[in-house]
Amino acid sequence: MELIKDGWFIETNPLWPGQGMCFEVEKVLYHEKSQFQDIVVFKSTNHGNVLVLDNILQLTEKDEFCYHEMMVHLPLNSHPAPKEILIVGGGDGGSVREVMKHPEVEHVTLCEIDEKVIEVSKKYFPNMTCSFDDPRLDIKIGDGLEFIKKNRNAYDVIITDSSDCIGPAKLLFEKEYYELMKSALKPNGIICSQGENVWLSEEIVVKMIDFCRDIFPAVSFAYCSVPSYTSGEQAFTLCSLNPHTDFKKPVRSWGAEETAKYGLKYYNSSVHQAAFALPEFFRRALQLPV
Amino acid sequence: MELIKDGWFIETNPLWPGQGMCFEVEKVLYHEKSQFQDIVVFKSTNHGNVLVLDNILQLTEKDEFCYHEMMVHLPLNSHPAPKEILIVGGGDGGSVREVMKHPEVEHVTLCEIDEKVIEVSKKYFPNMTCSFDDPRLDIKIGDGLEFIKKNRNAYDVIITDSSDCIGPAKLLFEKEYYELMKSALKPNGIICSQGENVWLSEEIVVKMIDFCRDIFPAVSFAYCSVPSYTSGEQAFTLCSLNPHTDFKKPVRSWGAEETAKYGLKYYNSSVHQAAFALPEFFRRALQLPV
Repeated sequence: MELIKDGWFIETNPLWPGQGMCFEVEKVLYHEKSQFQDIVVFKSTNHGNVLVLDNILQLTEKDEFCYHEMMVHLPLNSHPAPKEILIVGGGDGGSVREVMKHPEVEHVTLCEIDEKVIEVSKKYFPNMTCSFDDPRLDIKIGDGLEFIKKNRNAYDVIITDSSDCIGPAKLLFEKEYYELMKSALKPNGIICSQGENVWLSEEIVVKMIDFCRDIFPAVSFAYCSVPSYTSGEQAFTLCSLNPHTDFKKPVRSWGAEETAKYGLKYYNSSVHQAAFALPEFFRRALQLPV
Repeated sequence: MELIKDGWFIETNPLWPGQGMCFEVEKVLYHEKSQFQDIVVFKSTNHGNVLVLDNILQLTEKDEFCYHEMMVHLPLNSHPAPKEILIVGGGDGGSVREVMKHPEVEHVTLCEIDEKVIEVSKKYFPNMTCSFDDPRLDIKIGDGLEFIKKNRNAYDVIITDSSDCIGPAKLLFEKEYYELMKSALKPNGIICSQGENVWLSEEIVVKMIDFCRDIFPAVSFAYCSVPSYTSGEQAFTLCSLNPHTDFKKPVRSWGAEETAKYGLKYYNSSVHQAAFALPEFFRRALQLPV
């Protein structure tokens, strides 16, 4: 395995030339090429188990909560009654776990293209797959884009919890997919998608926000820290069919009581609001007000 | 030079075990052991020139603006009339450059322990040292702690722009130094210090915030993205002698006009406010309200 040298996993990639993150490896636990991608799980010395797809780090047990809490609670707390939820991707279970914390949720569909990711996560990431037995969950194995084509007017919130804009997830960053998501939403529905990274992928993000503005009446862009990702952060694209949705002001404000009850480690109502304050150069690139 | 292998600088350190950042090196421009520390400057392939002190990355030309804009504009825009400024450390010039953007500032003292850092920065980081000729600036070469002992009731704002809590900067993270800074402030004076990192140094930060609360009537803690730092972020400790200072609400609110005028790339009034929204686990550790 070339991506692990001298006991270290080094994540370099043409998507972020000239830089990379590295993590010390205690033991490689799993390595297999599935039908869709190369899957590696290793036990790190200081960050718990780590999942790598096609040589890109997807999560560490130590800080996966940052991404999954924000990915889920930003859109769900922006919707007045999130009952019917679709998660595209998310085979590691982290987003399902967070969605199930919302008492309003009645039914969740997880559409993951790669069954192997689910299998591997059940074995090596039990703290993430802990809601796979929830009776409100249906798991579909298949292509998210094809699945969404067959569903109209069906979901209050669609979460696209995908890998990066190369490989099996590439089509999930295209305009056609966003148009399909729009058709799959119920009235006043909301989407939240993996929005790449402010520092590494300005072009991809600007293009995505541009076509979102053609499709949806309310569009916003947020980000959070994920220390184990190159550049240390992750962004989210949020769109609503309701032109009055103000993503910065959640309809449910979670303070100390809720964050303790739901065992949250990253998200709270102040963090929710702050996630939309973009560094000045990026605010300008996206033509947003201060 | 062992810290550069196969054309890559790899920043591993006992302060953040099991992880590291790496940058591709085009050419090593400078390497010398000064009286105080090991100094390396290299030209990276994608992040401009990079300064490394005692094997720890201090800045890249590509994103140094994040740290320096926040380090300076958080405290200066929280003070009603910041006229007399002291910067301890900061020999690279980045903080001086940002301080000089404030028209209220009448006089700045830069106290840097290592003259070599100033020399090297003048040569390899001209976009950072561009305000060293400003007639409002006095440069003192010496120990910040000793310098501050001799100054009483002298500064409106003291900025401690130091390296990490090991090596020559270690004493700048101790209670005695904070007590000396208090004596060196004018009435209603404010300090802003390098506050380490939320993810890597929880213990150091909690201890520091605790003794700050013993010394100052108003204490706050902020952070920002610095993509080239391990974990991708940097925190700041802010204290005021005025119990009514609310750091989250700057007394001068810089919108699109000011950010354009001063050429800012990270800071604006929304980012200022958002910087104080801490991840939930950290808010709890510091016993702050949501």
